Amino acid sequence: MSDQNPVFIPGPTNIPDRLRAAMHMQTRDHRAPDFVETFAPVLEDTKAVFGTKDGKIITFPASGTGGWEAAVCNTLSPGDKVLVARYGMFSHRWIDLCERHGLDVQVIDCAWGAGAPADRFEAELTADAAHAIKAVLVTHNETATGVTSDIGAVRAAMDAAGHPAMMFVDCVSSLASIEFKMDAWGVDIAVSGSQKGFMLATGMAILAVSPKALAAMETAQLPRTFFDFRDMLQANASGGFPYTPPLQLIYGLRESLKMLMEEGLENVYARHFRLAEGVRRAVDAWGLKLVAEHPELYSDTVSAIYVPEGFDSNALTDQAFNAYGVSFGIGLGQMNGKAFRIGHLGSLTDVMVLSGLATIEMAMADLDYPIELGSGVAAAQDYYRQNRTALIKSAA
Amino acid sequence: MSDQNPVFIPGPTNIPDRLRAAMHMQTRDHRAPDFVETFAPVLEDTKAVFGTKDGKIITFPASGTGGWEAAVCNTLSPGDKVLVARYGMFSHRWIDLCERHGLDVQVIDCAWGAGAPADRFEAELTADAAHAIKAVLVTHNETATGVTSDIGAVRAAMDAAGHPAMMFVDCVSSLASIEFKMDAWGVDIAVSGSQKGFMLATGMAILAVSPKALAAMETAQLPRTFFDFRDMLQANASGGFPYTPPLQLIYGLRESLKMLMEEGLENVYARHFRLAEGVRRAVDAWGLKLVAEHPELYSDTVSAIYVPEGFDSNALTDQAFNAYGVSFGIGLGQMNGKAFRIGHLGSLTDVMVLSGLATIEMAMADLDYPIELGSGVAAAQDYYRQNRTALIKSAA
Amino acid sequence: MSDQNPVFIPGPTNIPDRLRAAMHMQTRDHRAPDFVETFAPVLEDTKAVFGTKDGKIITFPASGTGGWEAAVCNTLSPGDKVLVARYGMFSHRWIDLCERHGLDVQVIDCAWGAGAPADRFEAELTADAAHAIKAVLVTHNETATGVTSDIGAVRAAMDAAGHPAMMFVDCVSSLASIEFKMDAWGVDIAVSGSQKGFMLATGMAILAVSPKALAAMETAQLPRTFFDFRDMLQANASGGFPYTPPLQLIYGLRESLKMLMEEGLENVYARHFRLAEGVRRAVDAWGLKLVAEHPELYSDTVSAIYVPEGFDSNALTDQAFNAYGVSFGIGLGQMNGKAFRIGHLGSLTDVMVLSGLATIEMAMADLDYPIELGSGVAAAQDYYRQNRTALIKSAA
Amino acid sequence: MSDQNPVFIPGPTNIPDRLRAAMHMQTRDHRAPDFVETFAPVLEDTKAVFGTKDGKIITFPASGTGGWEAAVCNTLSPGDKVLVARYGMFSHRWIDLCERHGLDVQVIDCAWGAGAPADRFEAELTADAAHAIKAVLVTHNETATGVTSDIGAVRAAMDAAGHPAMMFVDCVSSLASIEFKMDAWGVDIAVSGSQKGFMLATGMAILAVSPKALAAMETAQLPRTFFDFRDMLQANASGGFPYTPPLQLIYGLRESLKMLMEEGLENVYARHFRLAEGVRRAVDAWGLKLVAEHPELYSDTVSAIYVPEGFDSNALTDQAFNAYGVSFGIGLGQMNGKAFRIGHLGSLTDVMVLSGLATIEMAMADLDYPIELGSGVAAAQDYYRQNRTALIKSAA
Repeated sequence: MSDQNPVFIPGPTNIPDRLRAAMHMQTRDHRAPDFVETFAPVLEDTKAVFGTKDGKIITFPASGTGGWEAAVCNTLSPGDKVLVARYGMFSHRWIDLCERHGLDVQVIDCAWGAGAPADRFEAELTADAAHAIKAVLVTHNETATGVTSDIGAVRAAMDAAGHPAMMFVDCVSSLASIEFKMDAWGVDIAVSGSQKGFMLATGMAILAVSPKALAAMETAQLPRTFFDFRDMLQANASGGFPYTPPLQLIYGLRESLKMLMEEGLENVYARHFRLAEGVRRAVDAWGLKLVAEHPELYSDTVSAIYVPEGFDSNALTDQAFNAYGVSFGIGLGQMNGKAFRIGHLGSLTDVMVLSGLATIEMAMADLDYPIELGSGVAAAQDYYRQNRTALIKSAA
Repeated sequence: MSDQNPVFIPGPTNIPDRLRAAMHMQTRDHRAPDFVETFAPVLEDTKAVFGTKDGKIITFPASGTGGWEAAVCNTLSPGDKVLVARYGMFSHRWIDLCERHGLDVQVIDCAWGAGAPADRFEAELTADAAHAIKAVLVTHNETATGVTSDIGAVRAAMDAAGHPAMMFVDCVSSLASIEFKMDAWGVDIAVSGSQKGFMLATGMAILAVSPKALAAMETAQLPRTFFDFRDMLQANASGGFPYTPPLQLIYGLRESLKMLMEEGLENVYARHFRLAEGVRRAVDAWGLKLVAEHPELYSDTVSAIYVPEGFDSNALTDQAFNAYGVSFGIGLGQMNGKAFRIGHLGSLTDVMVLSGLATIEMAMADLDYPIELGSGVAAAQDYYRQNRTALIKSAA
Repeated sequence: MSDQNPVFIPGPTNIPDRLRAAMHMQTRDHRAPDFVETFAPVLEDTKAVFGTKDGKIITFPASGTGGWEAAVCNTLSPGDKVLVARYGMFSHRWIDLCERHGLDVQVIDCAWGAGAPADRFEAELTADAAHAIKAVLVTHNETATGVTSDIGAVRAAMDAAGHPAMMFVDCVSSLASIEFKMDAWGVDIAVSGSQKGFMLATGMAILAVSPKALAAMETAQLPRTFFDFRDMLQANASGGFPYTPPLQLIYGLRESLKMLMEEGLENVYARHFRLAEGVRRAVDAWGLKLVAEHPELYSDTVSAIYVPEGFDSNALTDQAFNAYGVSFGIGLGQMNGKAFRIGHLGSLTDVMVLSGLATIEMAMADLDYPIELGSGVAAAQDYYRQNRTALIKSAA
Repeated sequence: MSDQNPVFIPGPTNIPDRLRAAMHMQTRDHRAPDFVETFAPVLEDTKAVFGTKDGKIITFPASGTGGWEAAVCNTLSPGDKVLVARYGMFSHRWIDLCERHGLDVQVIDCAWGAGAPADRFEAELTADAAHAIKAVLVTHNETATGVTSDIGAVRAAMDAAGHPAMMFVDCVSSLASIEFKMDAWGVDIAVSGSQKGFMLATGMAILAVSPKALAAMETAQLPRTFFDFRDMLQANASGGFPYTPPLQLIYGLRESLKMLMEEGLENVYARHFRLAEGVRRAVDAWGLKLVAEHPELYSDTVSAIYVPEGFDSNALTDQAFNAYGVSFGIGLGQMNGKAFRIGHLGSLTDVMVLSGLATIEMAMADLDYPIELGSGVAAAQDYYRQNRTALIKSAA
């Protein structure tokens, strides 16, 4: 693989030089005043990206999976009931985690390609008159299918059912790329990570936690130490960490927030939409179909694309990697072999996206796909040039 | 704080340029063949540092605390009994973790400054005729007190008691700096991290797990997902990771292992002894005392040093930081205010150590300590020049 | 401008991470043994890239212009006659330099787009029965027009004329990208730089000097100190430099040579041909013309492309930069406004080139050029996929 | 050599992380607007460091030697007379350069260790009633002897003699470390470089040129192209460069200026005095003598120190390098074998200086010098702790 070409996996994303430089720092003393002076504002500034004023930001040196575990362990007790919809690999894996931790998981199975089923949530919650369900778990952006769900609709369903359950949302592959409104949507825990919209290296789970979830923390019985919110909040209160913090990622997050604020969150979201829309125009020009069931569900961070009948999507991503040195996302779970994915999030330009489209076209041609070279590129070019926007500035 | 001065905290340690460069990598696809080709040899090569042939290496994107939790959760069940000696902050915190996870913790309390009490372990294990104790937990290098315990003696005690318990060892602040013999000592899980002897950024727990501990994994009932050995081993078997791996740290570990092997582990250990001995000569010249009770316990990675009666060690470390921009370790727990610590591990030279000694002398003089400027430096200089050794080569 | 997109100027070229890392070094003592041990092999290994065994490599902390001046000052005396062909901006500027240094410059003016006129050289040299001409100056790759000249033919012309003049060749924008055969072609001084085929930062002129040119050095009367070959060779003989050397670039050159040798020079040249040919297919698909007069002259490092009548090439490169954040080469000198240039040399992949082609297509469409979006991209894709080759490996 | 230890050569200096990061940039197009927007302010902001409002800043991709050559070639004609005092290696080499370029060099020889002889300058200039002398060349800080001369006194001497000659000053190893007042002192060309007080890599000569020197440029007959002020000023006027600029160093200089201004030039000079004074206290404690003849001449950037009779300074610097991995300056020219040098300029802290003093003490002890280990360190510690000052802040 060549380091020179961008990656088109849906995270970890291409890291801009400015953030690589920020993470390149020499060791500093995490118990010294300058860490304290750095860390507290980083936590505060992260709130805007989650769309919360009331929530607390909590970070762990862990992956998004660790973030899920932290959400669950800090608020629930063995045997507690949770309601979850499964419509892709990541919702599936969160369910598995809940089961391993002894929760009573009520699953709503949906087609892969569907979004969060607000109506079915409402029905189940209404049926739960005893309020046995303690939390509803939703995946905002299902990375396996390229589906972004309407979290506001889930909130409306919960309200319609008059149900007091907490709502936990996985926004790992949407945050800082697609608008997220924690407070407006009444989200209780939002789980994200460093390696997607924040454009950093993998290694830090980033959560936002509502006052309601913080209250649940006091009675939750699931065991936890590394992921314990209480230790973390107590240490954070004086600018510290309960164990050795991931310094490089915290300083990286500080710089990432600066980049996001310099560009403006609205512009960040608009850029992701524009880049994604170019990809979708290309898909259409190729005569292919997205896994996402309908346009309202199309994700602006990742497109999962069905290969034609009789083709193997793994052969396609292999060809792109082996022949041209470019990584695309493979089809996960049910989609393995059937769909490939183009990640289009984080530090990316239209020019970079066009190189990805040109590459996958070559790989498709190599494998005798019925597509015309340049056709998807042309469709995206046409869209991009007619919808120009300010460039992301990645360096001072 | 000035980035130009070394840190003398006992980790995270000063990161050599070569490793900063290795971690500065651009994003690569962790599902692509080149990651597989990188990761498997890294796991294999790490074994030598632990002194194991039989064990498996397991890494998590987490801190050392996460490593402890992983050790416990993967091998034990709620209510299981563990035997632990407490002789410093890190053994204390491991005990707390066990208690939070519902284990029955039998604590042997020792003085801070003492090492692992092999005789008392033997007595307790002998008394446990029913073999209720499932694991003995030992801290190899107690970072809070600068004490290195004799793990071989603990093994001998367990053998003398004819007890089948597993032995878990925290070697976070000793591994890759002080010799560790997992197989010879019969260690079942050894827990370390990226940010000490491996000279990398914080963010990766590194464990070695014996076949016996792997067998225990099958029946252990403590809940875990993020830290589940089974998922990790299954994914590792094909060169992968169960979730997004900490790429930068894995590539960093690859380069760290190269550096350690180029220097030679024996030379690495000898260098740490030499650097530490120079510090101890300085402490003696100042007329101060180490927290470690006797020379057999002296740690080659960190020295905890009592300040004289009537002085506050926090004022001393503050002065060193504020007046000279140099970080030393504060006194932790019982030692807070009473002792300060000089970390002397990882990527460090005699020349760097002398700058640390010179700094703390100035800070002591500023606070009217009864010491003579230059006295500790001279004692260390004398030792270093009479015990010269090959220089660490930090760049190709 | 976005740092994320590649540049398509004909140098300085995109710097691969591996070389950025090599140049990122901390200061070392240039009078210490490790510099000596580094520098001498670098000079030796550079010879293969020039295709010389007999020549000496000389480096200066300077640009290619400095290299030209060094070549002239070290071998000629005021009033000496030199024969030069002018067929682009860089040959023009070398002539200007000679004139300013008091040489008697005999210019053969050719069309911009033509190559070195071997027949006219032969005629002039044959006419110079008194051998007043001391040196023939030729530009191997004229960066302004995208023309690569046949240096072997110039040598043949000189031999046919039986003329003893030295031959100096500017290979700044060809070396390490297009084959260069110093010894076989009888070149006396070849002048290159760090920032093109060597993929490094600007700042080091790199020359190869034949024994014949070294002999001329003894009698040359043009004043020089900074550029004096004698001081340099004397200092180099013991591994040193006559003044402070450009350490970072020398260590960078060491790594660049490793990369070139790992790929294999033949493969490097083949890759440049392949990338260039794809660009030429695109130009053809657009219905545009190259400045280079005929295919034998097409440069594999840069293509200068006429815009259609009535269009301004500066508006095109401005549009590419302002609307899409991508730099292309402007038309220089006579070509200003008439032609733009695509640099395709150094650390570049087919995927990157396709992004450049897609970008310039968008800019052309924005300015109402009569081209079809995707047409050039498709032509290049077709060529690239049918002429796949091993990928450059830019990282260990 | 270990990259971990600082260097104590008098340049190139230790490069702070912040500047290494600034120079680590990817290639940008030097003909694009963002370069223009960067370069012009950098030139403007550099003026304050030279202490000039009237002068122009000119930079070349070259070493300080190139800067000397540029000064001479742009203002003088063959046969022109210049007056120079020789009191060290660098004044000696500047004389050599003038001679090679056909100037008529009138040398005032002084002892090595003396400063610029204002009285003898006045005498010679007064004697030159015909004003044949076109320029007086002075070395502000003679790096070989650790002597800083009084340039204001030279100006006073020239004024007293009523002589219209230009004054050129070599401030390579003083600028940005020791106050320089170009306008106040009536300096016509000041020559410096990137690798000393600016804390950057070697590779850029940085000059300030007075209106009077610019006027001389119009009639100067010495040949030059690479170093021609006229081309440079013309290109700079529109934000460009006459050839490929050293981008990385220009962006580095921008950041260096920010660092200097954040610290405040007065504080920068005070810090250099403080660090130097600590070294001088150590020298005194060792019972050694500086080469500089008297305290008014002591340089705050480098101390040249005589070794005792019967010792070889080269053996000492070799021992420091080979046994401890630390580079000190060797004795140059007349001082070779007799004196070693400690560079104490650029990005340096008291803590770093103490490590250098401790190292050279060990090396002296190894070679049986009659010094007491720790004695110099103690003297410097005592001075530093009683003269604390704000720390340089090297990172945001």
